[in-house]
Amino acid sequence: MGPHPAVAAIRLAVRRVLHDVLTEHPADPAAPRDAHPLVLVACSGGADSMALASALAFEARKLPVRAGGITVDHGLQDGSDSRAGEVADRMAALGLGPVEAVAVTVGREGGPEAAARDARYAALDAAAERHGATAILLGHTRDDQAETVLLGLARGSGIRSLSGMAAVSGARGRYRRPFLRLDRQTVRTACIAQELAVWDDPHNSDPAYTRSRLRHEGLPALEKALGKGVVEALARTAQLSRDDADALDTWAADAETTARDEAGALACDKLSGLPPAVRRRVLRRAVIAEGAPAGSLFARHIEELDRLITGWRGQGAINLPGRVEARRQGGRLVIRQG
Amino acid sequence: MGPHPAVAAIRLAVRRVLHDVLTEHPADPAAPRDAHPLVLVACSGGADSMALASALAFEARKLPVRAGGITVDHGLQDGSDSRAGEVADRMAALGLGPVEAVAVTVGREGGPEAAARDARYAALDAAAERHGATAILLGHTRDDQAETVLLGLARGSGIRSLSGMAAVSGARGRYRRPFLRLDRQTVRTACIAQELAVWDDPHNSDPAYTRSRLRHEGLPALEKALGKGVVEALARTAQLSRDDADALDTWAADAETTARDEAGALACDKLSGLPPAVRRRVLRRAVIAEGAPAGSLFARHIEELDRLITGWRGQGAINLPGRVEARRQGGRLVIRQG
Repeated sequence: MGPHPAVAAIRLAVRRVLHDVLTEHPADPAAPRDAHPLVLVACSGGADSMALASALAFEARKLPVRAGGITVDHGLQDGSDSRAGEVADRMAALGLGPVEAVAVTVGREGGPEAAARDARYAALDAAAERHGATAILLGHTRDDQAETVLLGLARGSGIRSLSGMAAVSGARGRYRRPFLRLDRQTVRTACIAQELAVWDDPHNSDPAYTRSRLRHEGLPALEKALGKGVVEALARTAQLSRDDADALDTWAADAETTARDEAGALACDKLSGLPPAVRRRVLRRAVIAEGAPAGSLFARHIEELDRLITGWRGQGAINLPGRVEARRQGGRLVIRQG
Repeated sequence: MGPHPAVAAIRLAVRRVLHDVLTEHPADPAAPRDAHPLVLVACSGGADSMALASALAFEARKLPVRAGGITVDHGLQDGSDSRAGEVADRMAALGLGPVEAVAVTVGREGGPEAAARDARYAALDAAAERHGATAILLGHTRDDQAETVLLGLARGSGIRSLSGMAAVSGARGRYRRPFLRLDRQTVRTACIAQELAVWDDPHNSDPAYTRSRLRHEGLPALEKALGKGVVEALARTAQLSRDDADALDTWAADAETTARDEAGALACDKLSGLPPAVRRRVLRRAVIAEGAPAGSLFARHIEELDRLITGWRGQGAINLPGRVEARRQGGRLVIRQG
């Protein structure tokens, strides 16, 4: 008798990613085990990442891959250190090794969720370097992806923010998300079918957190209004938006090169012929290249800058974030940090 | 004492659109009134379009513009004909003329909302032709736009479906939406401030309608989870997505021309170098050009077609909607209706 269909589904998802990793980093099955690439799972002890840990442990046995695990103790709840130790023990019991619990200090920048995320990824990056890991698997599901798209939608800053999480991201494609096309229900069912002990992070149901409100109230209400296919539609939107944003970025990079003169200034006549979506991306690139922090650069800044091209009536210099100044001079756009 | 700020806001919005219309269709203020362009308001008698009718009547008096109104009787409720007559009377009382109530028969295609919309626009188009109108104003607000974006999101079919309603649309830019950047609350306040009698369409609060569920449950829940800026963020997403989709369509049209050989077939090597987002648009265009109905063409069709380019392993012909067949032959993509 084969495994439960949900267990088969999570294993297949992990197997595909391990095959990708081995294609990119070929390993000799005959080489000593130490020479095989190391793949780590980032595991909170919650259902999604415990399922991922179990599937990684199962699949790695059949491949020239070493499988380990990292759990991050954010230190935000009493007893989080002992819980992290317990999660590490559970990973070891699955047959993963090396296994490590890493404690981090969460700052405050960007709000509690962003600060915790920044600290977590920094710790994972450091763990990957320390252990010489080729890849780190993350347990995000299609439902997480849908939530991420809605969070991006709430920013209203364009299709890049609608593109959610990538299946492959980070330096040298370090992070992989095998479950991005699996729904949360399948992953949870796989835990139950394997009798895995999982830990429910109280933050996940704490209405103080935006993502938790979205998960327990916003998304269900949207499903009630629009039908059950919303999560899938949002995940599909993420993929399409990512491809579209990538294509437009490529175009903008090419257009920028073409529009620059020998001195490196942007020729207004070359910019004015571009579609608005491309021109605005060129302007954004140019301003960031001169030192404006991307996070402080809003649509209204780019629109004002764009009017130097499309609505020229002798305006003066424009002040942009990061002490960057832009002016039009003799048909050229001069952008400089003051 | 000037008008109430909400009244000033709706009038300014209409004034701007009338200026656009007059810029595109210059009128001689000294010419007889009959020679001035006619602008119609499409008015259901609801708050948004009554506000629009009032602002059009007010602003047109100061300009070389004739202002009239059309109300469409969908015949879906008892007494809808007498109500339509009443709405026409109210428009005439505002000083609009010509004023007309048009009865339509709503079919069933595409569901009740789509069928009503199709019948309504057909009637408005016919009315514009009959009266020789230059423009038809529609009362959609920023809140309607946000709902339209969410409805598009639920389709999950990419950024074109996220781009909502255009400020200018239809043949020769016939339809204009002056309130697309105004929130519904402002428009409703303008009705109250002007003591306009308005009619609440019971469909707008009938949970049998998707848009109504979205308005009264989905969007409020999303605002509760994500914050009050959601409507504005969705409207901004619409504008950005529209510009992005336009740019990518331009690119795809150019790329298609470049990829076609003398016989009109698509060269696979030229397609394979394109970013996926552009290549998929080229393929979609090509299949529609051969007779596949756009509405029946799904992402999975285009993906299968794309694999003839990016995953070529000698596949056979692919059957597409509208009896269109695609095959790869000697490095060329041959797409034909059978």
